[in-house]
Amino acid sequence: MDHRANPAAAAEAGIDRIADFAGLDAEAREQVARRARVVQLPKDSHPFVAGAPCEAYLIVIEGCVRVQIVAESGREIVLYRVASGESCVLTTSCLLKHEPYSAEALCESVVTALAIPAGLFHDLLGTSSAFRKAVLESYATRVTDLIMTFEELAFRRLDRRLAEALVERAVDGAVTATHHDLAVELGSAREVVSRALKALEQDGLVGLGRGMIRITAPDRLARLARSV
Amino acid sequence: MDHRANPAAAAEAGIDRIADFAGLDAEAREQVARRARVVQLPKDSHPFVAGAPCEAYLIVIEGCVRVQIVAESGREIVLYRVASGESCVLTTSCLLKHEPYSAEALCESVVTALAIPAGLFHDLLGTSSAFRKAVLESYATRVTDLIMTFEELAFRRLDRRLAEALVERAVDGAVTATHHDLAVELGSAREVVSRALKALEQDGLVGLGRGMIRITAPDRLARLARSV
Repeated sequence: MDHRANPAAAAEAGIDRIADFAGLDAEAREQVARRARVVQLPKDSHPFVAGAPCEAYLIVIEGCVRVQIVAESGREIVLYRVASGESCVLTTSCLLKHEPYSAEALCESVVTALAIPAGLFHDLLGTSSAFRKAVLESYATRVTDLIMTFEELAFRRLDRRLAEALVERAVDGAVTATHHDLAVELGSAREVVSRALKALEQDGLVGLGRGMIRITAPDRLARLARSV
Repeated sequence: MDHRANPAAAAEAGIDRIADFAGLDAEAREQVARRARVVQLPKDSHPFVAGAPCEAYLIVIEGCVRVQIVAESGREIVLYRVASGESCVLTTSCLLKHEPYSAEALCESVVTALAIPAGLFHDLLGTSSAFRKAVLESYATRVTDLIMTFEELAFRRLDRRLAEALVERAVDGAVTATHHDLAVELGSAREVVSRALKALEQDGLVGLGRGMIRITAPDRLARLARSV
Protein backbone atom coordinates (compact mmCIF):
# COMPACT_ATOMS: atom_id res chain seq x y z
CA MET A 1 0.00 0.00 0.00
CA ASP A 2 1.23 3.50 -0.76
CA HIS A 3 0.90 5.26 2.60
CA ARG A 4 1.00 8.67 1.01
CA ALA A 5 -1.98 7.91 -1.25
CA ASN A 6 -4.32 6.95 1.58
CA PRO A 7 -2.85 7.68 5.02
CA ALA A 8 -6.12 6.97 6.87
CA ALA A 9 -6.41 3.50 5.34
CA ALA A 10 -2.74 2.88 6.19
CA ALA A 11 -3.32 4.01 9.79
CA GLU A 12 -6.37 1.74 10.05
CA ALA A 13 -4.36 -1.22 8.75
CA GLY A 14 -1.69 -0.28 11.31
CA ILE A 15 -4.18 -0.27 14.20
CA ASP A 16 -5.30 -3.76 13.18
CA ARG A 17 -1.78 -5.03 13.69
CA ILE A 18 -1.45 -3.66 17.24
CA ALA A 19 -2.75 -6.19 19.79
CA ASP A 20 -3.08 -3.55 22.55
CA PHE A 21 -5.60 -1.69 20.39
CA ALA A 22 -7.85 -4.70 19.74
CA GLY A 23 -10.38 -3.47 22.29
CA LEU A 24 -10.40 0.14 21.11
CA ASP A 25 -13.85 1.78 20.95
CA ALA A 26 -15.14 2.94 17.55
CA GLU A 27 -14.78 6.65 18.35
CA ALA A 28 -11.11 6.41 19.42
CA ARG A 29 -10.36 4.10 16.52
CA GLU A 30 -11.85 6.54 14.04
CA GLN A 31 -9.83 9.42 15.49
CA VAL A 32 -6.57 7.47 15.44
CA ALA A 33 -7.22 6.38 11.82
CA ARG A 34 -7.88 9.97 10.81
CA ARG A 35 -5.11 11.78 12.72
CA ALA A 36 -2.31 9.22 13.26
CA ARG A 37 0.23 8.32 10.58
CA VAL A 38 2.10 5.18 9.66
CA VAL A 39 5.78 6.06 9.36
CA GLN A 40 8.67 4.08 7.93
CA LEU A 41 12.14 4.53 9.36
CA PRO A 42 15.32 3.23 7.71
CA LYS A 43 17.69 0.87 9.51
CA ASP A 44 20.27 2.77 11.63
CA SER A 45 18.15 5.94 11.70
CA HIS A 46 17.41 7.68 15.00
CA PRO A 47 13.68 8.06 15.77
CA PHE A 48 14.81 10.42 18.53
CA VAL A 49 17.97 11.74 20.18
CA ALA A 50 18.58 13.23 23.64
CA GLY A 51 17.21 16.76 23.90
CA ALA A 52 14.70 16.41 21.07
CA PRO A 53 11.06 17.31 21.76
CA CYS A 54 8.54 14.46 21.88
CA GLU A 55 5.79 15.07 19.37
CA ALA A 56 4.04 11.73 19.01
CA TYR A 57 3.18 8.49 20.80
CA LEU A 58 4.87 5.71 18.83
CA ILE A 59 3.89 2.08 18.56
CA VAL A 60 6.17 -0.21 16.58
CA ILE A 61 4.20 -2.22 14.00
CA GLU A 62 7.19 -4.03 12.54
CA GLY A 63 10.90 -4.01 13.27
CA CYS A 64 12.95 -3.25 16.34
CA VAL A 65 14.11 -0.02 17.95
CA ARG A 66 16.87 0.06 20.55
CA VAL A 67 16.82 2.78 23.22
CA GLN A 68 20.22 3.56 24.67
CA ILE A 69 22.09 6.07 26.72
CA VAL A 70 25.54 7.27 25.77
CA ALA A 71 27.90 8.27 28.58
CA GLU A 72 30.31 11.19 28.33
CA SER A 73 33.05 8.64 27.75
CA GLY A 74 31.17 7.57 24.60
CA ARG A 75 30.25 4.22 26.15
CA GLU A 76 26.72 3.07 25.30
CA ILE A 77 24.28 0.92 27.22
CA VAL A 78 21.06 -0.57 25.93
CA LEU A 79 18.16 0.41 28.20
CA TYR A 80 15.63 -1.72 26.37
CA ARG A 81 14.32 -2.66 22.94
CA VAL A 82 10.92 -1.84 21.49
CA ALA A 83 9.63 -4.67 19.28
CA SER A 84 6.46 -5.19 17.21
CA GLY A 85 3.30 -4.21 19.06
CA GLU A 86 5.21 -2.35 21.76
CA SER A 87 5.46 1.28 22.76
CA CYS A 88 8.51 3.10 24.12
CA VAL A 89 8.54 3.83 27.86
CA LEU A 90 10.68 6.93 27.43
CA THR A 91 8.40 8.38 24.73
CA THR A 92 5.37 7.87 26.97
CA SER A 93 7.20 9.45 29.92
CA CYS A 94 8.22 12.48 27.83
CA LEU A 95 4.67 12.95 26.53
CA LEU A 96 3.18 12.72 30.03
CA LYS A 97 5.76 15.15 31.42
CA HIS A 98 5.80 17.45 28.36
CA GLU A 99 9.57 17.20 28.38
CA PRO A 100 12.23 16.43 25.76
CA TYR A 101 13.92 13.04 25.38
CA SER A 102 16.79 12.07 27.70
CA ALA A 103 18.15 9.13 25.66
CA GLU A 104 18.46 8.12 22.04
CA ALA A 105 16.71 5.54 19.89
CA LEU A 106 18.29 3.58 17.06
CA CYS A 107 16.43 1.48 14.47
CA GLU A 108 18.05 -1.95 14.43
CA SER A 109 16.06 -2.82 11.30
CA VAL A 110 13.70 -1.06 8.93
CA VAL A 111 10.88 0.00 11.27
CA THR A 112 7.21 0.64 10.57
CA ALA A 113 5.45 2.51 13.36
CA LEU A 114 2.15 4.19 14.12
CA ALA A 115 2.66 7.80 15.23
CA ILE A 116 -0.20 9.33 17.25
CA PRO A 117 0.27 13.12 17.57
CA ALA A 118 0.79 14.38 21.16
CA GLY A 119 -2.45 16.39 21.15
CA LEU A 120 -4.59 13.42 20.12
CA PHE A 121 -2.74 11.22 22.64
CA HIS A 122 -3.69 13.53 25.50
CA ASP A 123 -7.27 13.94 24.24
CA LEU A 124 -7.83 10.19 24.01
CA LEU A 125 -6.34 9.54 27.47
CA GLY A 126 -9.26 11.64 28.75
CA THR A 127 -12.08 10.58 26.45
CA SER A 128 -11.48 6.87 25.79
CA SER A 129 -11.19 4.46 28.68
CA ALA A 130 -10.12 1.73 26.22
CA PHE A 131 -7.30 3.90 24.86
CA ARG A 132 -6.26 4.88 28.39
CA LYS A 133 -6.22 1.25 29.47
CA ALA A 134 -4.19 0.17 26.41
CA VAL A 135 -1.61 2.94 26.80
CA LEU A 136 -1.20 2.84 30.58
CA GLU A 137 -1.11 -0.95 30.90
CA SER A 138 1.54 -1.10 28.19
CA TYR A 139 3.48 1.70 29.88
CA ALA A 140 3.31 0.08 33.32
CA THR A 141 4.44 -3.23 31.85
CA ARG A 142 7.48 -1.60 30.29
CA VAL A 143 8.27 0.16 33.56
CA THR A 144 8.30 -3.08 35.53
CA ASP A 145 10.39 -4.70 32.75
CA LEU A 146 12.85 -1.86 33.22
CA ILE A 147 12.98 -2.49 36.97
CA MET A 148 13.72 -6.16 36.24
CA THR A 149 16.58 -5.16 33.91
CA PHE A 150 17.86 -2.94 36.68
CA GLU A 151 17.68 -5.86 39.08
CA GLU A 152 19.51 -8.08 36.63
CA LEU A 153 22.21 -5.49 36.06
CA ALA A 154 22.70 -5.14 39.79
CA PHE A 155 22.63 -8.78 40.79
CA ARG A 156 23.46 -11.34 38.22
CA ARG A 157 27.01 -12.24 37.46
CA LEU A 158 28.29 -11.21 34.06
CA ASP A 159 29.13 -14.74 32.95
CA ARG A 160 25.52 -15.85 33.37
CA ARG A 161 24.16 -12.78 31.58
CA LEU A 162 26.71 -13.29 28.81
CA ALA A 163 25.71 -16.95 28.43
CA GLU A 164 22.06 -15.88 28.20
CA ALA A 165 22.84 -13.27 25.54
CA LEU A 166 24.78 -15.84 23.50
CA VAL A 167 21.98 -18.42 23.73
CA GLU A 168 19.43 -15.80 22.62
CA ARG A 169 21.49 -14.53 19.69
CA ALA A 170 22.74 -17.91 18.40
CA VAL A 171 21.87 -18.85 14.83
CA ASP A 172 23.03 -22.30 13.67
CA GLY A 173 25.29 -22.66 16.69
CA ALA A 174 27.10 -19.36 16.23
CA VAL A 175 26.74 -15.74 17.27
CA THR A 176 27.82 -12.96 14.92
CA ALA A 177 28.85 -10.17 17.28
CA THR A 178 31.96 -8.32 18.34
CA HIS A 179 33.01 -8.14 21.98
CA HIS A 180 32.02 -4.47 21.80
CA ASP A 181 28.47 -5.39 20.66
CA LEU A 182 28.08 -7.76 23.59
CA ALA A 183 29.48 -5.19 26.04
CA VAL A 184 26.90 -2.63 24.89
CA GLU A 185 24.19 -5.25 25.23
CA LEU A 186 25.21 -6.15 28.78
CA GLY A 187 26.09 -2.66 29.97
CA SER A 188 29.65 -3.70 30.65
CA ALA A 189 33.11 -2.81 29.37
CA ARG A 190 34.58 -4.52 26.32
CA GLU A 191 37.61 -5.72 28.31
CA VAL A 192 35.40 -7.34 30.93
CA VAL A 193 33.33 -9.11 28.28
CA SER A 194 36.50 -10.27 26.49
CA ARG A 195 37.77 -11.76 29.73
CA ALA A 196 34.44 -13.49 30.37
CA LEU A 197 34.42 -14.89 26.81
CA LYS A 198 37.98 -16.17 27.24
CA ALA A 199 36.86 -17.95 30.42
CA LEU A 200 33.94 -19.55 28.57
CA GLU A 201 36.39 -20.66 25.84
CA GLN A 202 38.74 -22.18 28.39
CA ASP A 203 35.78 -24.06 29.86
CA GLY A 204 35.05 -25.45 26.39
CA LEU A 205 31.66 -23.74 26.05
CA VAL A 206 32.51 -21.50 23.09
CA GLY A 207 35.15 -21.01 20.40
CA LEU A 208 36.21 -17.46 19.61
CA GLY A 209 36.77 -16.19 16.07
CA ARG A 210 36.88 -12.76 14.45
CA GLY A 211 33.45 -11.12 14.97
CA MET A 212 32.02 -14.60 15.55
CA ILE A 213 31.51 -16.88 18.55
CA ARG A 214 30.87 -20.57 17.94
CA ILE A 215 28.88 -22.36 20.63
CA THR A 216 30.67 -25.64 21.23
CA ALA A 217 28.68 -26.93 24.22
CA PRO A 218 25.11 -25.61 23.80
CA ASP A 219 23.64 -27.62 26.67
CA ARG A 220 26.22 -26.45 29.19
CA LEU A 221 25.92 -22.87 27.96
CA ALA A 222 22.13 -22.97 28.35
CA ARG A 223 22.53 -24.40 31.86
CA LEU A 224 24.87 -21.55 32.77
CA ALA A 225 22.39 -19.00 31.32
CA ARG A 226 19.62 -20.38 33.53
CA SER A 227 21.67 -20.55 36.71
CA VAL A 228 21.21 -17.94 39.42
CA MET B 1 -5.97 15.37 64.99
CA ASP B 2 -7.47 11.97 65.71
CA HIS B 3 -7.78 10.41 62.25
CA ARG B 4 -10.30 7.83 63.44
CA ALA B 5 -12.68 10.50 64.73
CA ASN B 6 -12.96 12.37 61.44
CA PRO B 7 -11.27 10.53 58.57
CA ALA B 8 -12.67 12.87 55.89
CA ALA B 9 -11.22 15.95 57.61
CA ALA B 10 -7.91 14.11 58.00
CA ALA B 11 -7.94 13.20 54.30
CA GLU B 12 -8.70 16.80 53.36
CA ALA B 13 -5.83 18.04 55.52
CA GLY B 14 -3.66 15.41 53.81
CA ILE B 15 -4.60 16.61 50.31
CA ASP B 16 -3.61 20.15 51.31
CA ARG B 17 -0.09 18.94 52.04
CA ILE B 18 0.38 17.28 48.63
CA ALA B 19 1.76 19.79 46.10
CA ASP B 20 0.74 17.62 43.10
CA PHE B 21 -2.90 17.92 44.20
CA ALA B 22 -2.92 21.73 44.45
CA GLY B 23 -4.75 22.04 41.11
CA LEU B 24 -7.31 19.33 41.84
CA ASP B 25 -10.89 20.16 40.77
CA ALA B 26 -13.57 20.39 43.46
CA GLU B 27 -15.33 17.18 42.42
CA ALA B 28 -12.15 15.02 42.54
CA ARG B 29 -11.09 16.68 45.77
CA GLU B 30 -14.42 15.95 47.38
CA GLN B 31 -14.26 12.28 46.33
CA VAL B 32 -10.70 11.85 47.60
CA ALA B 33 -11.61 13.48 50.93
CA ARG B 34 -14.61 11.17 51.28
CA ARG B 35 -13.09 7.85 50.13
CA ALA B 36 -9.33 8.11 50.75
CA ARG B 37 -7.72 7.55 54.16
CA VAL B 38 -4.72 8.97 55.96
CA VAL B 39 -2.66 6.05 57.25
CA GLN B 40 0.22 6.01 59.70
CA LEU B 41 2.91 3.38 59.34
CA PRO B 42 5.53 2.62 62.01
CA LYS B 43 9.26 2.85 61.29
CA ASP B 44 10.64 -0.45 59.87
CA SER B 45 7.17 -1.65 58.82
CA HIS B 46 6.59 -2.90 55.28
CA PRO B 47 3.87 -1.01 53.37
CA PHE B 48 4.08 -3.85 50.83
CA VAL B 49 6.10 -6.97 50.09
CA ALA B 50 6.71 -8.88 46.86
CA GLY B 51 3.64 -10.86 45.81
CA ALA B 52 1.13 -8.75 47.76
CA PRO B 53 -1.86 -7.31 45.89
CA CYS B 54 -1.94 -3.55 45.33
CA GLU B 55 -5.10 -2.07 46.80
CA ALA B 56 -4.44 1.66 46.96
CA TYR B 57 -2.55 4.53 45.38
CA LEU B 58 -0.23 5.90 48.04
CA ILE B 59 1.21 9.38 48.41
CA VAL B 60 3.66 9.98 51.21
CA ILE B 61 2.66 13.03 53.27
CA GLU B 62 5.49 12.79 55.76
CA GLY B 63 8.43 10.42 56.20
CA CYS B 64 10.40 8.25 53.84
CA VAL B 65 9.77 4.83 52.31
CA ARG B 66 12.53 2.80 50.69
CA VAL B 67 11.64 0.43 47.85
CA GLN B 68 14.09 -2.41 47.42
CA ILE B 69 14.56 -5.75 45.79
CA VAL B 70 16.04 -8.70 47.58
CA ALA B 71 18.02 -11.23 45.53
CA GLU B 72 17.93 -14.96 46.16
CA SER B 73 21.30 -14.57 47.84
CA GLY B 74 19.62 -12.25 50.36
CA ARG B 75 21.47 -9.24 48.99
CA GLU B 76 19.34 -6.09 48.83
CA ILE B 77 19.45 -3.12 46.53
CA VAL B 78 17.61 0.17 46.95
CA LEU B 79 15.59 0.93 43.81
CA TYR B 80 14.49 4.35 45.00
CA ARG B 81 13.05 6.26 47.95
CA VAL B 82 9.62 7.85 48.20
CA ALA B 83 9.75 11.09 50.19
CA SER B 84 7.10 13.64 51.26
CA GLY B 85 4.75 14.60 48.45
CA GLU B 86 5.84 11.70 46.25
CA SER B 87 4.12 8.59 44.99
CA CYS B 88 5.66 5.15 44.43
CA VAL B 89 6.38 4.18 40.81
CA LEU B 90 5.92 0.49 41.54
CA THR B 91 2.55 1.02 43.25
CA THR B 92 1.31 3.02 40.27
CA SER B 93 2.59 0.34 37.87
CA CYS B 94 0.88 -2.43 39.81
CA LEU B 95 -2.41 -0.49 39.92
CA LEU B 96 -2.30 0.22 36.18
CA LYS B 97 -1.48 -3.41 35.38
CA HIS B 98 -3.78 -4.91 38.04
CA GLU B 99 -0.85 -7.03 39.19
CA PRO B 100 0.77 -7.77 42.55
CA TYR B 101 3.95 -6.10 43.80
CA SER B 102 7.35 -7.33 42.59
CA ALA B 103 9.50 -5.63 45.25
CA GLU B 104 9.23 -4.64 48.89
CA ALA B 105 8.87 -1.32 50.67
CA LEU B 106 10.34 -0.44 54.04
CA CYS B 107 9.48 2.60 56.16
CA GLU B 108 12.75 4.33 57.07
CA SER B 109 10.87 6.54 59.53
CA VAL B 110 7.34 6.85 60.84
CA VAL B 111 5.35 7.48 57.66
CA THR B 112 2.06 9.32 57.14
CA ALA B 113 0.48 8.64 53.75
CA LEU B 114 -2.72 9.25 51.86
CA ALA B 115 -4.20 5.98 50.54
CA ILE B 116 -6.60 6.29 47.60
CA PRO B 117 -8.46 3.00 47.04
CA ALA B 118 -7.77 1.32 43.67
CA GLY B 119 -11.37 1.72 42.47
CA LEU B 120 -11.43 5.46 43.11
CA PHE B 121 -7.98 5.80 41.54
CA HIS B 122 -9.21 4.25 38.29
CA ASP B 123 -12.47 6.24 38.35
CA LEU B 124 -10.67 9.55 38.80
CA LEU B 125 -8.14 8.80 36.06
CA GLY B 126 -11.13 8.80 33.72
CA THR B 127 -13.27 11.58 35.15
CA SER B 128 -10.78 14.20 36.37
CA SER B 129 -8.21 15.61 33.97
CA ALA B 130 -6.51 17.38 36.92
CA PHE B 131 -6.18 14.09 38.83
CA ARG B 132 -4.95 12.31 35.70
CA LYS B 133 -2.38 15.01 35.08
CA ALA B 134 -1.17 14.95 38.70
CA VAL B 135 -0.84 11.17 38.82
CA LEU B 136 0.67 10.60 35.39
CA GLU B 137 3.15 13.49 35.52
CA SER B 138 4.34 12.28 38.90
CA TYR B 139 4.57 8.71 37.59
CA ALA B 140 6.49 9.72 34.46
CA THR B 141 8.89 11.79 36.56
CA ARG B 142 9.64 8.82 38.79
CA VAL B 143 10.14 6.60 35.74
CA THR B 144 12.74 8.91 34.22
CA ASP B 145 14.41 9.21 37.65
CA LEU B 146 14.62 5.44 37.67
CA ILE B 147 16.24 5.45 34.23
CA MET B 148 18.79 7.95 35.53
CA THR B 149 19.56 5.69 38.51
CA PHE B 150 19.99 2.85 36.06
CA GLU B 151 22.37 4.98 34.03
CA GLU B 152 24.29 5.89 37.14
CA LEU B 153 24.55 2.28 38.23
CA ALA B 154 25.84 1.30 34.80
CA PHE B 155 28.28 4.10 34.22
CA ARG B 156 29.61 5.93 37.19
CA ARG B 157 32.54 4.60 39.07
CA LEU B 158 31.82 3.31 42.54
CA ASP B 159 34.23 5.71 44.25
CA ARG B 160 32.34 8.73 42.94
CA ARG B 161 28.96 7.29 43.87
CA LEU B 162 30.31 6.39 47.30
CA ALA B 163 31.66 9.93 47.78
CA GLU B 164 28.25 11.30 46.82
CA ALA B 165 26.45 9.01 49.28
CA LEU B 166 28.83 10.06 52.07
CA VAL B 167 28.37 13.77 51.33
CA GLU B 168 24.58 13.34 51.37
CA ARG B 169 24.47 11.34 54.58
CA ALA B 170 27.03 13.38 56.54
CA VAL B 171 25.90 14.98 59.80
CA ASP B 172 28.48 17.09 61.66
CA GLY B 173 31.29 15.74 59.49
CA ALA B 174 30.50 12.07 60.05
CA VAL B 175 28.36 9.33 58.54
CA THR B 176 26.78 6.71 60.75
CA ALA B 177 26.55 3.66 58.52
CA THR B 178 28.06 0.22 58.19
CA HIS B 179 29.81 -0.88 55.02
CA HIS B 180 26.82 -3.16 54.48
CA ASP B 181 24.41 -0.18 54.64
CA LEU B 182 26.43 1.67 52.00
CA ALA B 183 26.64 -1.43 49.78
CA VAL B 184 22.83 -1.77 49.84
CA GLU B 185 22.54 1.92 49.02
CA LEU B 186 24.89 1.67 46.06
CA GLY B 187 23.78 -1.73 44.78
CA SER B 188 27.25 -3.14 45.29
CA ALA B 189 28.88 -5.85 47.41
CA ARG B 190 30.10 -5.11 50.94
CA GLU B 191 33.64 -6.18 50.08
CA VAL B 192 33.75 -3.79 47.12
CA VAL B 193 32.52 -0.89 49.26
CA SER B 194 35.02 -1.74 52.00
CA ARG B 195 37.83 -1.63 49.45
CA ALA B 196 36.61 1.70 48.09
CA LEU B 197 36.37 3.14 51.61
CA LYS B 198 39.92 1.95 52.40
CA ALA B 199 41.11 3.75 49.26
CA LEU B 200 39.36 6.96 50.35
CA GLU B 201 41.01 6.59 53.77
CA GLN B 202 44.46 6.14 52.20
CA ASP B 203 43.82 9.29 50.16
CA GLY B 204 43.07 11.14 53.40
CA LEU B 205 39.44 11.88 52.57
CA VAL B 206 37.83 9.85 55.36
CA GLY B 207 38.69 8.11 58.61
CA LEU B 208 37.09 4.72 59.28
CA GLY B 209 35.68 3.72 62.65
CA ARG B 210 33.20 1.09 63.85
CA GLY B 211 29.83 1.83 62.13
CA MET B 212 31.05 5.40 61.58
CA ILE B 213 32.94 7.21 58.84
CA ARG B 214 34.54 10.56 59.67
CA ILE B 215 34.94 12.95 56.75
CA THR B 216 38.43 14.41 57.07
CA ALA B 217 38.62 16.38 53.80
CA PRO B 218 35.08 17.53 53.04
CA ASP B 219 36.05 19.77 50.08
CA ARG B 220 37.99 17.04 48.30
CA LEU B 221 35.25 14.50 48.98
CA ALA B 222 32.62 16.87 47.53
CA ARG B 223 34.83 17.42 44.47
CA LEU B 224 35.12 13.67 43.96
CA ALA B 225 31.33 13.30 44.32
CA ARG B 226 30.74 15.87 41.57
CA SER B 227 33.34 14.46 39.15
CA VAL B 228 32.22 12.42 36.14
